[in-house]
Amino acid sequence: MSAPLPFLKGHGTENDFVILPDPDNALDLPAALVARVCDRRAGIGGDGVLHVVRSAAHPEARAMAGEAEWFMDYRNADGSVAEMCGNGVRVFARYLEHAGLVTAGDLAVATRSGVRRVHLAKNAEHAENAEHAKNAGNAEHAKNGDVTVAMGRAVLSADGVTVSVGGRSWPARNISMGNPHAVAFVEDLAHAGELRAEPAYEPAGVYPDGVNIEFVADRGPRHVAMRVHERGAAETRSCGTGACAVAVASARRDGLDPAETGTPVTYTVEVLGGTLTITEHPDGNVDMTGPAVIVAEGRIDPRWLAGDGAGDGDGR
Amino acid sequence: MSAPLPFLKGHGTENDFVILPDPDNALDLPAALVARVCDRRAGIGGDGVLHVVRSAAHPEARAMAGEAEWFMDYRNADGSVAEMCGNGVRVFARYLEHAGLVTAGDLAVATRSGVRRVHLAKNAEHAENAEHAKNAGNAEHAKNGDVTVAMGRAVLSADGVTVSVGGRSWPARNISMGNPHAVAFVEDLAHAGELRAEPAYEPAGVYPDGVNIEFVADRGPRHVAMRVHERGAAETRSCGTGACAVAVASARRDGLDPAETGTPVTYTVEVLGGTLTITEHPDGNVDMTGPAVIVAEGRIDPRWLAGDGAGDGDGR
Repeated sequence: MSAPLPFLKGHGTENDFVILPDPDNALDLPAALVARVCDRRAGIGGDGVLHVVRSAAHPEARAMAGEAEWFMDYRNADGSVAEMCGNGVRVFARYLEHAGLVTAGDLAVATRSGVRRVHLAKNAEHAENAEHAKNAGNAEHAKNGDVTVAMGRAVLSADGVTVSVGGRSWPARNISMGNPHAVAFVEDLAHAGELRAEPAYEPAGVYPDGVNIEFVADRGPRHVAMRVHERGAAETRSCGTGACAVAVASARRDGLDPAETGTPVTYTVEVLGGTLTITEHPDGNVDMTGPAVIVAEGRIDPRWLAGDGAGDGDGR
Repeated sequence: MSAPLPFLKGHGTENDFVILPDPDNALDLPAALVARVCDRRAGIGGDGVLHVVRSAAHPEARAMAGEAEWFMDYRNADGSVAEMCGNGVRVFARYLEHAGLVTAGDLAVATRSGVRRVHLAKNAEHAENAEHAKNAGNAEHAKNGDVTVAMGRAVLSADGVTVSVGGRSWPARNISMGNPHAVAFVEDLAHAGELRAEPAYEPAGVYPDGVNIEFVADRGPRHVAMRVHERGAAETRSCGTGACAVAVASARRDGLDPAETGTPVTYTVEVLGGTLTITEHPDGNVDMTGPAVIVAEGRIDPRWLAGDGAGDGDGR
């Protein structure tokens, strides 16, 4: 490759991404290049890559092109392909607005798990949301403009699970948001310890594909704070599906069920990287609203892209 | 601030920096802004900031302006001011060349610890170094062009020190490169364990200001590999002064002393982030040669700079 590669860096509640705009799907993006780009010291650095392609130009998205003009071709930091990322969709939508490709309001984004409905708050809504956030004691909440993403339905299981860390154990609620979550209510988030290793759970074998484990503490009426250990990873700054699972588990614990009352229920969920607002609707659909920030934009150096190996350490 | 802020990202053996070009010293760079820029998820991300200022335009460098046109105003990732950074000087010099502000060859860089002599290898030298590196089995070594920095004199102490990790103990060599180092030779670098916590050492109190601890294993004639625990931090991908201390300690262990023979001695030192070449001269001066890579360049978004707080998490 001999031309510089345009990129942006952005984050949603500190889940951060390298955005690679490529409307015509002309980029060759092998896993090794994605991994180099996401390398936090030898590359740009990010939790993943948002490859921005017109749905009509991508074989995996062509069938969605009539409904959603843009396809989020999401890649994990190791270069592997992923289906969806809730924080990623917010940043993806923010990028489209930033680049003048869409205007604020409703839009649809194609992902590997289908078309996602997104709403980019307009200026008036920003002000309103900011006011609401301010009243809730979260003045930071709406500053960069909120983005709302339809996250699908939560499926609660009646099965009991127990989660343990550092000699303490808690009963946990078993919830699927397409991926599995175990939600434990704790008195103090510090009780979850350093969360470097995966917390123990039982019964053994209850999560054959692993599980995301959330610890939740109360902060006020319909307002909680959480920490999360993501499966296959470690503690992260934010987990979109985790925040949804936490809001639904908190509502049930508080005796609130939109399906029974016909009224949507909204929770404020603090994650380490910021604040998310989760609304569960009577039909079971869950919306996640949160910030999405463009930090910088520029071009990756062609000499670096050409594979200059300086820094490919092997000292161990 | 309402204008976008130009930046570059670069690294030297995976010690990475955000470069902020500011010839006239017009930027206001409070510690909080530096810390936000260096935040790996909510900002650009880096081990520190290289603020590039004309020496004549900076009160701390004005006296060096006759000797060195450019001042490396180095900031740590927490925003605090630092004196010097060997990997940083290489990347600083590479930036000056990249921006057309200097041409390859010899130059001088002003730092808070005085004027540093630097040599940017020209193309012919690149080829020669690459050939040398290839012969030494390090084909990656000179690919992005080597930069050599005069690192000053090593001061060896006769005092014995013992370093311990995970039940193993080693005698360590006590060396100052302006900052303190304890260099321990080990059979296997894995014996140093995960290096999250500082290794124990004795006698207690021998390093009132803390110490950088290097573990060294042989790789071949005048060729070693190292890992380092940097004081006040943790294991890092590279430590320039540490590599110098390791080369000098290795030479003495091998019975080589340039001051006695009148002949320079060169060691190849692998760090986790790449390969450095260290030469000790008969007058005691130590040169460090290694790669310096520009990864990308761009502009930081003015809305982000304006302090958009989205993502200032407080969930813990």
